[in-house]
Amino acid sequence: MAMKRAATSAIRAFSSSSPASSVSSGSSTRLLHASAESKKIVGVFYKANEYASLNPNFVGSLEGALGIRDWLESQGHQYIVTDDKEGLDSELEKHIPDLHVLITTPFHPAYVTAERIKRAKNLQLLLTAGIGSDHIDLEAAAAAGLTVAEVTGSNVVSVAEDELMRILILVRNFLPGYHQVINGEWNVAAIAYRAYDLEGKTVGTVGAGRIGKLLLQRLKPFNCNLLYHDRLKMDPELEKQTGAKFEEDLDSLLSKCDVVVINTPLTEKTRGMFDKERIAKMKKGVLIVNNARGAIMDTQAVVDACSSGQIGGYSGDVWNPQPAPKDHPWRYMPNHAMTPHISGTTIDGQLRYAAGVKDMLDRYFKGEEFPPQNYIVKEGKLASQYL
Amino acid sequence: MAMKRAATSAIRAFSSSSPASSVSSGSSTRLLHASAESKKIVGVFYKANEYASLNPNFVGSLEGALGIRDWLESQGHQYIVTDDKEGLDSELEKHIPDLHVLITTPFHPAYVTAERIKRAKNLQLLLTAGIGSDHIDLEAAAAAGLTVAEVTGSNVVSVAEDELMRILILVRNFLPGYHQVINGEWNVAAIAYRAYDLEGKTVGTVGAGRIGKLLLQRLKPFNCNLLYHDRLKMDPELEKQTGAKFEEDLDSLLSKCDVVVINTPLTEKTRGMFDKERIAKMKKGVLIVNNARGAIMDTQAVVDACSSGQIGGYSGDVWNPQPAPKDHPWRYMPNHAMTPHISGTTIDGQLRYAAGVKDMLDRYFKGEEFPPQNYIVKEGKLASQYL
Repeated sequence: MAMKRAATSAIRAFSSSSPASSVSSGSSTRLLHASAESKKIVGVFYKANEYASLNPNFVGSLEGALGIRDWLESQGHQYIVTDDKEGLDSELEKHIPDLHVLITTPFHPAYVTAERIKRAKNLQLLLTAGIGSDHIDLEAAAAAGLTVAEVTGSNVVSVAEDELMRILILVRNFLPGYHQVINGEWNVAAIAYRAYDLEGKTVGTVGAGRIGKLLLQRLKPFNCNLLYHDRLKMDPELEKQTGAKFEEDLDSLLSKCDVVVINTPLTEKTRGMFDKERIAKMKKGVLIVNNARGAIMDTQAVVDACSSGQIGGYSGDVWNPQPAPKDHPWRYMPNHAMTPHISGTTIDGQLRYAAGVKDMLDRYFKGEEFPPQNYIVKEGKLASQYL
Repeated sequence: MAMKRAATSAIRAFSSSSPASSVSSGSSTRLLHASAESKKIVGVFYKANEYASLNPNFVGSLEGALGIRDWLESQGHQYIVTDDKEGLDSELEKHIPDLHVLITTPFHPAYVTAERIKRAKNLQLLLTAGIGSDHIDLEAAAAAGLTVAEVTGSNVVSVAEDELMRILILVRNFLPGYHQVINGEWNVAAIAYRAYDLEGKTVGTVGAGRIGKLLLQRLKPFNCNLLYHDRLKMDPELEKQTGAKFEEDLDSLLSKCDVVVINTPLTEKTRGMFDKERIAKMKKGVLIVNNARGAIMDTQAVVDACSSGQIGGYSGDVWNPQPAPKDHPWRYMPNHAMTPHISGTTIDGQLRYAAGVKDMLDRYFKGEEFPPQNYIVKEGKLASQYL
């Protein structure tokens, strides 16, 4: 595995068994064989507290620590986990100067800023337990010669399922009925006047990568009109299988959809792309599902459009920032169906991304390549979707 | 259309154009040609109040009155609608002695008891706007020679979609996250420790009629293990298409399922069938979705099992009785995701069942047969699923 910063360290050992193709021709990049020495690995996860003991498979929590502590320590590595991630007095900050590997997660993101990268003199590898590494300053990581990788595919099914749930919750107007129940009320009309079937509605995904495709497959039996917008048309076979139609122009898709699902990564191009102007181009009363990233939306524009009725319902599990502060306006806007960042951290998802992190650490120790699709930054270069 | 009671009325006119096959050989059954006279038609619907004006397609409400008032009155019929249905002082009760047709709905059920049928000397036809006629004493209706019919198929898609939504809400543990958001909290662990993907789980439907089949089709892309229990195996083609496996023995199905969905009509055989003993045969922590009828469950057994953790989550829109009183224990049991009776009365569903009721009234006035699948009681005989 090529890592520029690793190559600058005098104490590294080099693997001769690694595939030649991974060796950069530049003198600043070398293969790392990390197993010859003890590494300091830090993981930042959300704390489970009283919930830790309730499920033996709860590996994504601080207490579960991805289930890799014994394995790491048996190989002589040091493994520190914390949920204390913010500010210069945090537990994470204490370990920044001498950690080699930092494992983070989108669900409780440790923001890896350029300043932190600068202070992390021994840092070689940033692993995301899950998918989505926008909490890391990728340009700074690339400039520092770090490798950034995530467990691509580990929770795409989890997120796609969750999106379909949210579509149904909004289309069918679930929450007002639930509120009636817990408040001792019964008023069918107050739900029914804006409850619809999903069948026959136009549903579009902005972004048709792994998650978007899984969503389209799951939407297929609902007999909707399916649209997608992406940089590229999808495989004709999948297009045929799902019946989804390509919309090259985003605004054209938005003007047609009863339901819009956002499935793009957060990049400099997508940050704030759903602002007041773009939301105004959507159908009056559009329902929006966003499990991608909160910062793709203009926060206040969403609040205003939910209040005016331009947006008829908004559901997602991503916020800007995370954790969402108590006064985040999305908590209080009308017709929302929000949750904390949860869709990719089901127990099933946790087991998959814990296994993926372990696999990459194992390869790192052995100086082997990661699965190619996992790289976000490799040899100082961003993966194509981040360019 | 054959109606025993119609035949006993001295003022009826008879249609000679009706198909001979519908003429019973018995002397007590005759064909009714109702168009020769003015009929009194009463509809019992839920009141929309301030919601009535918010959607021009809100035809299922009292104010919407199925959108058939002008059509009925232009033909000289009298059309009365009310939501006041309970007790001897109710508006409905005033019209019982002289109404000819009573239109009811499962969402705001007017309970048509043997006593009411006895008092309704002119009653010929009971129409359900929607599906499910268990609020009618069918034996009494049959004995009185009435015809009972519903708009079969009108909202099966609506209900199947709603069931899939509820499955996802329970499996993915949606509501605790939503509660955190509105309460100003953020605790991913408190959601994640019992949030799962639907993929790979075993989902069984008890009853695989129209709704159950639509549900299985929609579950297909989720890659679950699908099981079904019914009196009969389904069409081999549909079994192949959905991948669902037949379980002849109900308890065998129940012991295997992570999620059980109830899709049987309420009959004397299914009333209370999910009692303490049967719930105990299910997997610990089973998730149950019931949009069929509340009385299929033993109310207290569900509460107890939700409290003990034997049931890990319960969601549905049907209650016993309806409207559910303020102190109904299902409002307050842990891990529920209940709503008022709503799944079949989406705007799309309303438009379909309103059209179906109009079609049957039109046929009734003309002395024509209804679509065969719509009959619940015909010529004093219950349809096969109620036997």
